[in-house]
Amino acid sequence: MIFSETVLRVLYAHTDKMGVVNNARYLEYFEAGRNDLLRMLGSPYTELEKLNVGLPVIEAYVKFIQPARYDELITVRAEIRNVPSVRFRIDYEVSGSEGKLVEGYTVHAFIDLQKLTPVRPPAYFLDLLRKKF
Amino acid sequence: MIFSETVLRVLYAHTDKMGVVNNARYLEYFEAGRNDLLRMLGSPYTELEKLNVGLPVIEAYVKFIQPARYDELITVRAEIRNVPSVRFRIDYEVSGSEGKLVEGYTVHAFIDLQKLTPVRPPAYFLDLLRKKF
Amino acid sequence: MIFSETVLRVLYAHTDKMGVVNNARYLEYFEAGRNDLLRMLGSPYTELEKLNVGLPVIEAYVKFIQPARYDELITVRAEIRNVPSVRFRIDYEVSGSEGKLVEGYTVHAFIDLQKLTPVRPPAYFLDLLRKKF
Amino acid sequence: MIFSETVLRVLYAHTDKMGVVNNARYLEYFEAGRNDLLRMLGSPYTELEKLNVGLPVIEAYVKFIQPARYDELITVRAEIRNVPSVRFRIDYEVSGSEGKLVEGYTVHAFIDLQKLTPVRPPAYFLDLLRKKF
Repeated sequence: MIFSETVLRVLYAHTDKMGVVNNARYLEYFEAGRNDLLRMLGSPYTELEKLNVGLPVIEAYVKFIQPARYDELITVRAEIRNVPSVRFRIDYEVSGSEGKLVEGYTVHAFIDLQKLTPVRPPAYFLDLLRKKF
Repeated sequence: MIFSETVLRVLYAHTDKMGVVNNARYLEYFEAGRNDLLRMLGSPYTELEKLNVGLPVIEAYVKFIQPARYDELITVRAEIRNVPSVRFRIDYEVSGSEGKLVEGYTVHAFIDLQKLTPVRPPAYFLDLLRKKF
Repeated sequence: MIFSETVLRVLYAHTDKMGVVNNARYLEYFEAGRNDLLRMLGSPYTELEKLNVGLPVIEAYVKFIQPARYDELITVRAEIRNVPSVRFRIDYEVSGSEGKLVEGYTVHAFIDLQKLTPVRPPAYFLDLLRKKF
Repeated sequence: MIFSETVLRVLYAHTDKMGVVNNARYLEYFEAGRNDLLRMLGSPYTELEKLNVGLPVIEAYVKFIQPARYDELITVRAEIRNVPSVRFRIDYEVSGSEGKLVEGYTVHAFIDLQKLTPVRPPAYFLDLLRKKF
C-alpha cells in the first residue's frame, strides 16, 4: 500500500451559491492528490508523459459526506491498495477540520498519449509499485 | 420515466493537455442536464430554492467511454427512472458525433438550504414526478 | 465590423458563495462568444488549428457591472472592430434580463501551435475579415 | 505597501489542449494570492464576511507573458500599493521556473453581502492597511 497527503486551501471560486464547495471541484482535488501520490511513488506523471504514456480517468466515484467550507484547509489522501494490472484504482479521502468530507476513487487505464489507445503499464512503473507491497 | 436532452458546445477551456475534455468537467455537464430535467418536469431548481429546499449531490459516478473533443456538440441526456423517496437518483448519458462518451449518475438528498439539514421532499415535487410514471 | 451572439444558461457550478457568477467564469463565457464569432466569420478555430495556428489570449480585461444570477439566460456578444494586424482584439458584452452584466476584451496573437512561437496571420483569415469591413 | 506570496502546483485540470494553463484559470490563481494577502494583513476574507462585508471584483486585467506548464510550481505575488478609498486595487505577478508568466490586477468594491450594495470600508480594515504604509 502507498498513500500521499496533499493539503489544499478551499478558494471562493470552488464554492457555489449553496455556500460550500461545488461537487465538480472534488475531481480536481482528487487530481491534486493523485499527482502527489505518483510523485511520491518516484514516477511523477510528467515522467510517464515523457514515455508517451497517459493515465486517463476511465471511472470516477465520489461520495459526499460533509460539505467543505470556504477558506478551510483540507487534506486529500490518495492511496493505491493493489498492484495494478491493465487498469488501476486510486482511492481518496478528503478531510477537513471536522472530519471526513468526501471519499471516492478513480480507475485509470494506461494509454499511448499520441494515439489515445491502450498500452501495457511501463515495467519500471510496476516495479516501483511492487516495492511498496 | 422522464428525461431531458441538453445540447452543449465543448469549449477549449473544457479540455486539458491530453487534447480532450478533462474528467472533472463532466460533473458540470451533468448539472446542465439535471437543470433542464427539473425545468422540464415543471419544477426548475429555482422553484425548490424559493421553498428553501436544496438538492445537493451526495453521490456521483462517471464512466468514461470515449473522449469528447474541442468544439464538438454534445448531448447530455438526464433521466429519472424511479419515483424518489428520501433520496433520488438521476442517470446521465453524454453523447457526441461518434456515439456515447460517458454515462453515470448522481444521487441527491433534499435539504433545508439555510440549515443544510435533511428535509422531506416537497409534496408538489413528488406529485409532478408521479404523473410521469 | 463583425459580431456574434451566444446564449448560455448560468449553471450552479458557475456561481460562488456570494450567490452570483464567480468572476473567473467570465473568461470562459468570453471564449464561448469568441468561438461562435470565428465560426460566423467562416473560420472556426478548429480550421486554424488544422493549419497549426493558435490564437492564445495575451491580454484580457473584464469590467463587472451587475452580477449574473443562477439559471439566468445570458447573451455573450463578441465583436471584432478592426482588421487585425499581428495582434487582434475582440470586444465582449455579456447581458442578462436586466441589462449589461459585464464588458471587456481579449487581445490575441497568432502562434505556431507546435512551437508556441509567433507567426503571421494566415492570408485566408485576413481576407475573410476584410470582407466584413 | 504590503505583499504576499502563494505557491501553487499547476494541475492537469488547469491546462487546455494548447498544453499550457488555460487563460481563465489565472483569475483563480489571483484569488489564491488575494486570499493569502488579506490573511497576512490580519483580516482574512472570512473576517470581513462575518461583518457582512464582501469584496467583489469589479475590474480584472491579465497580461499573459509566458505560458505556465503542467506540474510546475508557480508563485502568485499579490500586492496592495495604495491605501484604498471606496475602491481598491490589488496587483499580481505570477512567476514560474523561467520567470514572469503573467501580471495583472483586480479592482474591488466594498459591499453589503446581504443586499449586494456598496458600503464604506470597515474602519479596522483601513487601520490595518494604514499601518503598512
